Parts: sequence; structure tokens; C-alpha cells
Amino acid sequence: MQHQETNFFKEQLRTGEALYLPSISVDCVIFGFHAGQFKVLLLKYKHNNKWALPGGFVYKDEDVENAAIRVLNERTQLKDIFLQQFYLFGDVERSKEKHAEKLLQEEGIEDIDAHWLQQRFVTAGYYALVEYNKVKPVPDALSSECTWHSITDLPDLIIDHKQIIEKGLQVLRRQLNFQPVGYNLLPEVFPIKELQLIYETILGKKLDRANFQRKILSYGILDKKEKHYSGGAHKAPYLYSFNKESYFKALENGLAKEW
Amino acid sequence: MQHQETNFFKEQLRTGEALYLPSISVDCVIFGFHAGQFKVLLLKYKHNNKWALPGGFVYKDEDVENAAIRVLNERTQLKDIFLQQFYLFGDVERSKEKHAEKLLQEEGIEDIDAHWLQQRFVTAGYYALVEYNKVKPVPDALSSECTWHSITDLPDLIIDHKQIIEKGLQVLRRQLNFQPVGYNLLPEVFPIKELQLIYETILGKKLDRANFQRKILSYGILDKKEKHYSGGAHKAPYLYSFNKESYFKALENGLAKEW
Repeated sequence: MQHQETNFFKEQLRTGEALYLPSISVDCVIFGFHAGQFKVLLLKYKHNNKWALPGGFVYKDEDVENAAIRVLNERTQLKDIFLQQFYLFGDVERSKEKHAEKLLQEEGIEDIDAHWLQQRFVTAGYYALVEYNKVKPVPDALSSECTWHSITDLPDLIIDHKQIIEKGLQVLRRQLNFQPVGYNLLPEVFPIKELQLIYETILGKKLDRANFQRKILSYGILDKKEKHYSGGAHKAPYLYSFNKESYFKALENGLAKEW
Repeated sequence: MQHQETNFFKEQLRTGEALYLPSISVDCVIFGFHAGQFKVLLLKYKHNNKWALPGGFVYKDEDVENAAIRVLNERTQLKDIFLQQFYLFGDVERSKEKHAEKLLQEEGIEDIDAHWLQQRFVTAGYYALVEYNKVKPVPDALSSECTWHSITDLPDLIIDHKQIIEKGLQVLRRQLNFQPVGYNLLPEVFPIKELQLIYETILGKKLDRANFQRKILSYGILDKKEKHYSGGAHKAPYLYSFNKESYFKALENGLAKEW
């Protein structure tokens, strides 16, 4: 399987110009939430040991959004992922880092400067929200690793991929009250504390526990579940799940402006 | 001047492939506010009498955003326009309407199907906010007219340009509390009623006058000016101007969620 994908990729290096729309790529900021931390899924390139966002090119007969969905699906093995296009990164500057040069040399490509991978690309940034435990990260043919990294401790990334992550977070912050953020990041049932942690991480500040609980419950978007007795029963918090209907209705007008 | 631009354009039809980044264009939704109405600036194409958003291509050594700025400047004769990229329109479908075909025939281009203008383009949508009275609309070389149209009464538009306007409005609605909307649409001094009309138009609903006035004044972002006595003095409303410093500070956290 991996071997097949590698051959497919070597073939594409030679035929990509005929397959793909020139100048435009997609990059995906895949956000997961685990152990109280916001994480993004990154690939480690074999040819230069640098890290990069999962991304790819757009087939000539493919919608740009479908290219992003394809990339997300290949890297996470998940379908029906929540994703949002958030920005087109279109500066000339970003094409100056010729990060594929070494790869093309290794593959014995002639006339590297004229190769389609070396041309200028603008990239459409998409963010995705996934339930961390459901993802089975799979490296692409260029990469040796596909792993989660805390957004507060990112490794060196190619080109402008760090700025792409930062912009994605910034947009997510603005959209927090209009998008089903918690719904897509959390499992079916969860303690309110987990939801609060997500809000705190996206907003970049601590929130008062009682205040958050009062506000979030006031929307009628959470259903209280049976208390889950696991060991120290008196300490176990109530678990909740989203009431999908009232949640999506509340998002239409936006939730609280201030948390 | 107009004649020169026409020659320049004819030349570009033949040389554009070498000048421009393939696959990517920009389209600008230029919002103005006049006589209580939200308007957009549209071009009427000579070759098919259809209307279109002001747009253009991206030079190979030009940032995508700078291409949008160039288009805005050429059509409005204004510099330093407030603009925001809001969406990349990337569906395959949009390349199916070959609206330039007649133009290429008229220009005697051979092998029209292979011409660069006939290839698939994805387009980056930018919205701009301008002070209506400052704009001197100038058609481009393709167009016979460049005029304002009320967003509630749009003519037939090429490709997906109507959806681009709708998406621009939708994003503007979401950003109303975070972007200096009134500041860019209104003249230096204005009655509060004008600002209320802008909010009502963007939000698509009537607002209570006293309530709006109370809320907007509570932010301390408006400076009251001398009453302007013009004729029926007892009826003249107070005029206000934005206090730029406190306005931009207030926007960082966002204004009221509900108006």
C-alpha cells in the first residue's frame, strides 16, 4: 500500500503538470484536542527532515474544496470531517523557498528549475476540527511521520506553514461562537470542563468555571447524561452531550460574545 | 488614455499567458452606501452586454492582494481602500461558462479553446468599503460602463458573480462588529441615523432608533460635533465623527453581538 503510493507519487512528479491545476495548492490545519491541549497534525518530509502541513494539489477536474477533503481523508482516515476554508495565502514571497529542490534532485529530475513543483503556488488554507481519538494519522509518500504537535510547541515548518496555523487559529477564535467547535472536537459525551478547556485554548485566556458553566448551560444546547461512576464516585463530574438541534439553531445567531 | 488601455488590453490577450499566474484571478465586491442604500460597483462588458464584478489577473511577480488593490485603484481612482479577502471560489463548475469566447472571436484569436482566458480559473474574492461620493468609477478596457447598483436590485451577472456578492455580504455581516465598517463607508461627519441605516442594511433588519443610539454611544467611539444649522434648525440632528483611536480599540474585542 505504502509502496504503491510511493510509485504513484514518483509518477506524479513526472506527470503532475498534466494532472493538476497550476499555481494553486491546498493546506490543511487539522486541529485536535487531547489531554487539555490543542494539537495540529504535521508531516515530516523525508528529503529534508522538515515539517509541513498536510497538503496537496488540485486535479484539473476537481473543486478546490474537494482537494482539501481528499487530503484530510488520506491523512486521518476519517470521512465527513468538519472543515472551513479560511484564507488564500497569495504572496510572491512564499514561492522563494524551493523546498522541493532536494527531492527533485534525488528523483533524478532533469531541468529542476522548470519543473512544475518549483513554480509559484498560492495556497488555500482550510482548518479542520477532528476528534483526536478517532484519527489514525497516515504519512503521505513524501513523509516519514504524521504526528500531532501542540500548537504551543511547533517544530520548524516549511515556507509559511507556521503563519498558516496562526491565521487558522485566529479565524477559529472569531468563529468560535458561530461554528460547532466543541461538537467536532469532543467525543459524544464529555464533562463541561473539557469544553471549557477548548474555549480557554482558542481564546487564549482562563475562564471562570462557574461563569462558563452558567453561560453555556443557559443556551439549552447541552443534555445532561447519567453520572458516570468510575471509582471515586463522589468526585465524578456530570457528563453532557450536545443537543444537536438546539446547538445548530443557537449558532445561527452566534453564542455569547464574551465568555 | 482609454485608447491606450484598449491597446494594452489587446496586447495582453496575446501575451497574458506569459505575464499572469495561471488559474487564479481576483474579483472585487466594492460596497458603497448612498441615499440609504447599499450599492456595489459593476462593469458592463462590451462583447456580451453582461455585467461583472471588477476583477483581473495576478502578475507572476505580484502578491494576490496587490492585484486586488490594483483593480480597486483602477476602477475607483481611490488609494488606500479598505479591503478584505473573504473567500476563494474554487469550483470546477465556474469555468464552464465561457463568457470570453465572443470577445476572443471578435479579436481574431486563433485556437480559442486553447487560449489562456478559456482555461479554468479560481478566483479570490475581496470586499472593499468605500465612501460613495469619493469614487470616480472608470470602466476597464473590456467594458462600456462602470456604475453603482443597489444590492437589492442586481442585473444579470456573469458566472458566479452574484454568489460572490452574496458571500461578501454574508462575511461582512459576520465581521460587522470587528471591522471598521461605518468608518470606511461614511464621510468624516454624519448623523447617527446614517450609521444605523448601514447596520440595518448589513443585518437585513430594522433596529430600534433609541436602542441603537444608546448602544453605539456607550462605546465612546463617536465624537459629537457642532450642530449643523442648515435651514430648519430645530430639526437638524447632531453630527458625529468616529474617534479613530477608541473605535479601533473597541473593534479588537468586537462591538455588541446583538443590535
